[in-house]
Order: sequence, then structure tokens, then C-alpha cells
Amino acid sequence: MSPRRASGKTLRHFGEDHLIADLLHGFSFGENVIVGPGDDCAVIGRRSDRTWTLLKTDCVIERVHFFPDAEPRKIGWKALARAISDIAAMGGQPRHALITLAVSPDREVRWLKAIYAGIKKCADRFGVSIVGGETARSPGPLFLSIALSGVVEKARCTLRSGGRAGDAVFVTGRLGGSIRGKHFTFIPRVDEARWLTKNFRIHAMMDLSDGLGADLPRLARASNCGYQIEREKLPRNPRCTVENALADGEDYELLFTTAAQDAEPLASRWRKQFSQLPLTRIGVLTKLSTSSSRASNSLRGFDHFA
Amino acid sequence: MSPRRASGKTLRHFGEDHLIADLLHGFSFGENVIVGPGDDCAVIGRRSDRTWTLLKTDCVIERVHFFPDAEPRKIGWKALARAISDIAAMGGQPRHALITLAVSPDREVRWLKAIYAGIKKCADRFGVSIVGGETARSPGPLFLSIALSGVVEKARCTLRSGGRAGDAVFVTGRLGGSIRGKHFTFIPRVDEARWLTKNFRIHAMMDLSDGLGADLPRLARASNCGYQIEREKLPRNPRCTVENALADGEDYELLFTTAAQDAEPLASRWRKQFSQLPLTRIGVLTKLSTSSSRASNSLRGFDHFA
Repeated sequence: MSPRRASGKTLRHFGEDHLIADLLHGFSFGENVIVGPGDDCAVIGRRSDRTWTLLKTDCVIERVHFFPDAEPRKIGWKALARAISDIAAMGGQPRHALITLAVSPDREVRWLKAIYAGIKKCADRFGVSIVGGETARSPGPLFLSIALSGVVEKARCTLRSGGRAGDAVFVTGRLGGSIRGKHFTFIPRVDEARWLTKNFRIHAMMDLSDGLGADLPRLARASNCGYQIEREKLPRNPRCTVENALADGEDYELLFTTAAQDAEPLASRWRKQFSQLPLTRIGVLTKLSTSSSRASNSLRGFDHFA
Repeated sequence: MSPRRASGKTLRHFGEDHLIADLLHGFSFGENVIVGPGDDCAVIGRRSDRTWTLLKTDCVIERVHFFPDAEPRKIGWKALARAISDIAAMGGQPRHALITLAVSPDREVRWLKAIYAGIKKCADRFGVSIVGGETARSPGPLFLSIALSGVVEKARCTLRSGGRAGDAVFVTGRLGGSIRGKHFTFIPRVDEARWLTKNFRIHAMMDLSDGLGADLPRLARASNCGYQIEREKLPRNPRCTVENALADGEDYELLFTTAAQDAEPLASRWRKQFSQLPLTRIGVLTKLSTSSSRASNSLRGFDHFA
């Protein structure tokens, strides 16, 4: 079973979602696991608890998520902000983080310090305590993995799977073109998600990391729904096509659904609350097995192994 | 600030402990952080809680912690067992884990599945639920990071810093030569640490990952003590010198201290409870600034960047 000469199926032949499901097949959960793999975060607690714990891990890797000449403070910001975005997508507040760093011994200390300064800036902004971590030697690229815990009130914990046919589908902000800079400087939508889950019944929510074209089908599938979107309505960043908005990825905006009758009041109050950040109703969730489910094949987002 | 051409100080010039302290300098903690960076795990909770949460992250990296031709099940076992060993060293029980995997798209799916089978074997044995994770593309080596939570009763939570001058110093098992195989197959000392913290007042404890020569000075320093060990008494694996026992690392045994008057009863009851696993009294903690503190410079363990 040589790992180097691949005679069997490699990861290129596997979709990422399929891979994770396959790798974790047969794993069992103990008690207190409310949500396991497959949502933005794991949810830990007892059904009777008033608040639950959220757990998330994520990583950034040199030459995958950033180039060697990237500004080191931005690398640090991005590493932590990605994980915070997932806590936000559950309706939660981030709390405690651990940093695992693998780095070549030939790297400069001041470069690393600048990465940590970026982590600190993000941690301070979102009230996260860095409580530990581990360092290791890397034979090449820098790996920076963040484990993050959070808390969420049971009543505000929002999964991908709560969407219902007929729901209005919203996205925050503008999509596409993140590679030109936003992927380093984005603001996780914690405040917005906290406001949404406090004031409205949000049925399903996730953050957009692989592009709407990959992530909306995931939300719809988890909710056992289809969907229809109005492509020309998609909020796009400057110089972005509809295709960019669907497929570029790394938007770190919120994708969420709510009952149709809540859609207009929500949009109206949003404009007063977050006047600088657009909120766009991009479509609806539908029943499965309608014409819309075919549309799901027309969207494409980012697959990490494709 | 080019990361490639190092004109400034590189990590080779920094000790690992110094590096972490330096990187985290100025980071502040929120409430509920009982123990931050520097111990085997972070400890989260309120002083008034009866149980506290433990958080740990760790990683294994191809060509650093294992070679490409290593048996994949063992890679998986090792990745999780390392983190469990740190939970054990606090007196706790492991609970929920997240797996972050970065891997080249050209790797075989069955190789990855075998790694996860190793993780599952370890998770099942120690009652750990794998509740999520993330996959990413690696430009080269496999990188496998585990984030693990645990729980510990406040009264049994054992830090590195609780040692007192006069304490007896113990190690479990035998030291040295781990690279010949034990580093892949070791059993985290959860049962042993739970028994110790239930039946005795363990003042300070940690797991041996970088070798006694690096780890005992850390425990002594955290406890504000010196130490004296009887080198010829060190329990060694077959074909190991004293130097191997001090410096090879990856032993994953427990190092702990207890009041001198508890030492003999503890050793006696241990022999009945764990007849297959040696327990050795290797020395004492001393007051700082005695001749013993000079001895601390005569020990050497593993430095990840040296």
C-alpha cells in the first residue's frame, strides 16, 4: 500500500464531500454530540442545556491558501477569521482557540511574529482567547491550523439542515473576486448572525467558503430541499461575472433561509441595522424532485481536490 | 520581509519554549481561562465549577513524525494518541475530536482510509467521538492535526506547576528507543493517570514527548523547583543507554511528583494495580539555586527546531 505510487483511486477522483463522508463512515458518537461532521461546526451539549458548545477546526497552507510573499499579518488574520466565520454561521460566539503551527526551521522569527500579530488582531476584535497550541517542524510549506470553540444558545443554534420548501434564500455582502484581496481581510459575520438569530427565525444558515455554487447545493441537500436562484440578482463584487460569484469561493458571507413571510420585514430591518452591508434575496428553497433540482447541477463551486 | 531569504534570526536560533512564549507575548485571556499556553492542555472553566474542560491540539507531519512508507493505520493511531496522552497528563478523560487533514490530491483513497481506520481504533479504545474536521489540499507532505477536548474534575486537574521541593519524582514505563516502533503503538496513560489522581495527591504531572531531558526541566521550572535524578536508575527500553532515555523523546509516559511520604505507599499499590507497567522513582524536586539547578543544564531532550 505505497502512498507514493498511486495504483488505486486517488483523491482527484473523489469529491470532497464524498471523501469526508467515506472517511468517517462507521465512526460512532458518544452522548452529548448534538451535531457531528457535516455542518459548519460540531455541536456538543445535552438536549436540556440552555447553551451548547461549538467546535471547529480549520487550516491555511502556504501555496494553497496564500503565497509565500503574502503579508504575514494577513495570513494570521485569515487563519483565525475562517474559523470564526464558521462559528458565526451557527449563530454562535467564538471563545477559545488553539494554534498548531508547522514551519521550516529556516524561516525568520520576525515573519512568524507578524503572523501571530495578525492572529492577535483578529482574536482581540472578536473576543477570542488564544489558550494554547503546538509548534512543529515542517519539511516545506507553512501549515497553520486553528481549533476554535464557541458557545451558542440552544434556541439560536442554526444548522444547514433547517431549511424548508418555500423559504426565502439570502446572502450577505457581495460575492466573487475574493482572490484579489478580500480573502485576506474579510470580516466574519458574527455581529450579523447574532442579530439575525436574535430577531428572526432563521431556518438554515452556513458561511460561503467554497462559493455559492458549491455551498447552496450543500445547504439544500442538508435541508432535503431543492432551490431556485435568480442568477442575475446575485450581488457581485466589482469586475465579477455571475460565474465568479458562483465559483470563486472564499467569500465568507452568510447564506441563510427564512420563511417567505419573514423575508420582507427582515430585509427592511437589516437595511437600518447594517446600512453598509448589502443583503440580497437570491431565490427560494423548493420541494425536491421538481425542475429546480436539475438546476443544482448547473452550479459549480470549489472542490479542494479537483 | 521576505519569508524565503532569511536575513534575520531564524527559528534555528530559538529554543521552542522561547519561541512559543515570544509568539504569544501580549495575548490576553478572557474570563474562564484557568490555564493558558504552557501546560499539556488548556483548562477552561469557572473556579466554582466541579468539572473543567481541557483543550489540546497536536499534529503529525509526513517526513517529520513518520516516513511516507509508514503503515497508515499507525499514522492515524499516533495522531490521536498523542493528543490523548496530553489529556491524560492533566488527569482528564478525552471526549471530542476534530481532524484537520491536508493531503496531496495524488494520494490514494485507500491509504487515507487506512489512516482513518487507525484514528477510529484509537478513538474507540479511549471513548473519543470524532465530531468533525476539515480537509484541504497539501502541496506536498501529509499534515494531520487533531483538536481534542476532555473533561477533568477540578480536584483531580494536575498541572506541571504544582511540584514542591522534596517531592518524589516518578516515571511510568520505560524510556528511549521509541523510534524503533513504540512511537507508533504507544498506549496513552489515561487509566494510570485517572487511578493516580483518584487515589493520591499528585502534585505535578506531564507526559514525556520530547524526552525526560527536555521535559523534566520544564516541569521543574513550572514548579519553581530544581531537581536531582539518579541517571543510572532511569528505566530504559532494551538496547537503550541513559542518553537514549534522556534524549530520544516520544516516550508518551507520565512524569509526575508526589510528597515524599506518599512515594512508598503509591509505588506499592501501583505494583498491584498495574503489574505489567513499571513505575520508577527517579529522583526528587529540590529548592531552586542549589547545586541541583546546575544539573538541569546537563540534561538534553528534543528541540523541534534545533
